[in-house]
Amino acid sequence: MTNPTQEVLINGQWRASSQSAVFSPTNPTLGQPLAIEFPVSQWSDCDEALTAAASAFTKLRTMASEAIALFLEKYASLIEADKDGLVEIAHQESGLPKSPRLADVEMPRTLNQLRLAAAAARKQSWSMPTIDTKANIRSCYQAIGPVCVFGPNNFPFAFNSIAGGDFAAAIAVGNPVIAKANSSHPATSMRFAVLADKAVRETGMPSGLVQLIYRTSHADGERLVSDPRLSAIGYTGSRSAGLQLKSVADRVGKPFYAELSSVNPVVFLPGAFRERLDKLIEEYVTSGLMATGQFCTNPGMLLMLDNADTTNFIEGVTAKYRANNVGTLLSRSVETSLVKSISILKDAGAELLLGGSKVEGSRCAVANTVLKISGKQFLADPHVFQTEAFGNAVLLVVCSDITELAQAIEQLDGNLTGSIYSDSQGSDDANYSLIAAALTQRVGRILNDKMPTGVAVSPAMNHGGPFPATGHPGFTAVGIPASLIRFAKLTCFDSVREHRMPVVLQNDNSSGAWRLVDGNWSNGSLE
Amino acid sequence: MTNPTQEVLINGQWRASSQSAVFSPTNPTLGQPLAIEFPVSQWSDCDEALTAAASAFTKLRTMASEAIALFLEKYASLIEADKDGLVEIAHQESGLPKSPRLADVEMPRTLNQLRLAAAAARKQSWSMPTIDTKANIRSCYQAIGPVCVFGPNNFPFAFNSIAGGDFAAAIAVGNPVIAKANSSHPATSMRFAVLADKAVRETGMPSGLVQLIYRTSHADGERLVSDPRLSAIGYTGSRSAGLQLKSVADRVGKPFYAELSSVNPVVFLPGAFRERLDKLIEEYVTSGLMATGQFCTNPGMLLMLDNADTTNFIEGVTAKYRANNVGTLLSRSVETSLVKSISILKDAGAELLLGGSKVEGSRCAVANTVLKISGKQFLADPHVFQTEAFGNAVLLVVCSDITELAQAIEQLDGNLTGSIYSDSQGSDDANYSLIAAALTQRVGRILNDKMPTGVAVSPAMNHGGPFPATGHPGFTAVGIPASLIRFAKLTCFDSVREHRMPVVLQNDNSSGAWRLVDGNWSNGSLE
Repeated sequence: MTNPTQEVLINGQWRASSQSAVFSPTNPTLGQPLAIEFPVSQWSDCDEALTAAASAFTKLRTMASEAIALFLEKYASLIEADKDGLVEIAHQESGLPKSPRLADVEMPRTLNQLRLAAAAARKQSWSMPTIDTKANIRSCYQAIGPVCVFGPNNFPFAFNSIAGGDFAAAIAVGNPVIAKANSSHPATSMRFAVLADKAVRETGMPSGLVQLIYRTSHADGERLVSDPRLSAIGYTGSRSAGLQLKSVADRVGKPFYAELSSVNPVVFLPGAFRERLDKLIEEYVTSGLMATGQFCTNPGMLLMLDNADTTNFIEGVTAKYRANNVGTLLSRSVETSLVKSISILKDAGAELLLGGSKVEGSRCAVANTVLKISGKQFLADPHVFQTEAFGNAVLLVVCSDITELAQAIEQLDGNLTGSIYSDSQGSDDANYSLIAAALTQRVGRILNDKMPTGVAVSPAMNHGGPFPATGHPGFTAVGIPASLIRFAKLTCFDSVREHRMPVVLQNDNSSGAWRLVDGNWSNGSLE
Repeated sequence: MTNPTQEVLINGQWRASSQSAVFSPTNPTLGQPLAIEFPVSQWSDCDEALTAAASAFTKLRTMASEAIALFLEKYASLIEADKDGLVEIAHQESGLPKSPRLADVEMPRTLNQLRLAAAAARKQSWSMPTIDTKANIRSCYQAIGPVCVFGPNNFPFAFNSIAGGDFAAAIAVGNPVIAKANSSHPATSMRFAVLADKAVRETGMPSGLVQLIYRTSHADGERLVSDPRLSAIGYTGSRSAGLQLKSVADRVGKPFYAELSSVNPVVFLPGAFRERLDKLIEEYVTSGLMATGQFCTNPGMLLMLDNADTTNFIEGVTAKYRANNVGTLLSRSVETSLVKSISILKDAGAELLLGGSKVEGSRCAVANTVLKISGKQFLADPHVFQTEAFGNAVLLVVCSDITELAQAIEQLDGNLTGSIYSDSQGSDDANYSLIAAALTQRVGRILNDKMPTGVAVSPAMNHGGPFPATGHPGFTAVGIPASLIRFAKLTCFDSVREHRMPVVLQNDNSSGAWRLVDGNWSNGSLE
């Protein structure tokens, strides 16, 4: 028996959707649908949400940024108070372990992001206020307008469309958010929405500030993205759906921040293997199987030179992949997609060293998988061998020499990250120099002697990268304040009377925002 | 008698183009072609230029930013030494007055931009170095790779694809530039290229740093823009050609910075007219006819309320437009396009108060033109009444009341600028509040009591704006250092050994770059 179909949150009202169909999320641990139904919205839901968001934006523009900070803080407190319930439902929908993952890692990260966003909203340094006193010209970034956030399946809290990084960034700037829940965790998203709605009421924010729908048809999704009432989109998810929506947004010149896919190449130089082979096996396996490999920054492709150490590394990794528990995948569709990607790699000639097929039973799971190719194979078809196998699978690329490895690097698509391991004595330095510049050019974040999983919420983080990892190589989705800029427009105030300018551009600077004044950064007031 | 077809500059060599056809620029003052022929390149020219640019980029990545600064300074000096020749040829090709325009305004601006770009390259503050000492994560913007610059027709110096703002920004970041000359001033561009080539040699820069082609087929232009060897595009020009190239770049996720078209609405509130009508007539006419109205920021649409002052304003403007000299337009195609835009506006119902047709004779010129519509007419078809009439024509929108004017503002497309004139006593303040937020949201730069022509090269300038004025509302094409960011990628260095990071991220900071260190901006070294 299922409950009645759940409601959407539109303009501060929980109400029945103009639904065209219903769907239920799956409990991937059981491989069974949960006893709860969610609506597939028709266009009228989107239309009403857009109108409410536009109206909320008009009101927001007249409100102090302090109000936004208070909303974000209240919302964080309500989430914290409901932590156990959120962890329970997210576990049911995602199969991710309650502890440490959901309760002790992702929940604190989510709260931290919301509170950092609140602090950024309060201080306004994120808006890069720039003042030319001589020319009487001042500029800063300002809210862009209503933002639609499409969240991914793999972070039910930290990237949730109604509580995660894109949400926090868009709100902190001063934009209403229409959240499109990920279909794999609608109940988690709904539980967040209840709290967000409560926070909106308790802090007196406009009713269209935060809205939630669960799913639309593809056609309505495209119509939503191109609607003039919407100003920008944050999207994290599959490449094919993302590129389709991006093309629609591009046609109408609308910023579409897409985080698509990434194989996150890791290069092991020979000195590193000589120096600390066992440690590197351990380090890689921990990262590679973390969250069953379902991180955007999962190291999915390892490049190394053909020698005895490499043979030992491969044997070590394969043994550990065989011995390790097989984690649960986020959904049946992740399972299907992983099996398909492994097939593509195999069909292209990759040698299957381990795994490769679905684990028996109803649980969503694929055996831990190790595939191997030569550098020569990679160079013969670099496109197909960069197929992302999202989940607990890895492709090892064994190159005959550093020249071949460098050629492989030159063929890499844009990625979120690239890592290079080298020894501590300098024997790898020449090889490092041969490949580092080309790898750096192809990634958003370059790491030394470190796995790419673990994306610190730091002002210096870049969780971004060249296409097709994202849609633009100049923006990060993680790291406050930098991630906020995505949902802002640059506005210049030329000889505008002082009281008509945003507070952060006025002479008095009591919030202590950092401002670029006549070429120098300062956080004081003007005369 | 024409001279032999001119040569293209590819990989440091002046050589015959793989031409498919030839063309000659027109002297618009005479309405006659100049006795000089330029080639329309076939793909092989583009292909060779792309390979040379990629090779130059590999070399550039190993060079200190000081080398780039020295190149830009040398190039500026060579331009300054050849100033008279450049002014002469640019005058012949563009019809723009030698003095003050070309010699005394645009030339100094161009030199200033190149020198500011050199200073930015030297100091590296533009790269927004951000350091998290605790997490050992550091990030900055870095060169994106080879850039193609398509320059506009209206600034033969300051926006020239091989000497102007986009060129200076792309080079200062550390990118090679393939310049696509504007077809209306190829000889000016070639003269710059001779100097750029000389500067490349004299400062020991890679031979593919600066290259020049004049024209390609549309198909080859699209192929150039989407080629994997090219990393970004700067485009200033017509909306239709720009949108076509943008769509090609978008499909392959390549940053395409387009500056397209803008009508630059100016609102006159009633108190301003009451207070200083004659002054405002003078101020507007000077700005509106400056450079025969051929500025990106030309005030092409004036909005005001229907009253006696407005009637006087319109009479005053019309009288001055009638009395003023009729300037020469940049080319026959600008003339054709202006006549066509005026027809579109007339056909849609605009009343022609003055001008509207080509001036007799061979010179490229259209009579100074004034068109008028009501606010009601505008609201009935806001799309057609935002047709840009590039040149010496203006559309006056006379609204019945402030509500109607506010509704008109809500219908505006994205523009580079928006201006509001109000009185000094506060009688316009309520009206200002009614319209300012909506206008600000639709423009890149909002002005008070000031015409939008005159785009100061200031760090606080934004020469940009929402689509379709540009392709992304977060970037400016004018203002150093901000304009440089367009041609850069954000790169994070996560636990990368210090000597392997860019100089600007290392502990020592002897260039004195401004860096965001643990949340605070400073220009000193780390411990």
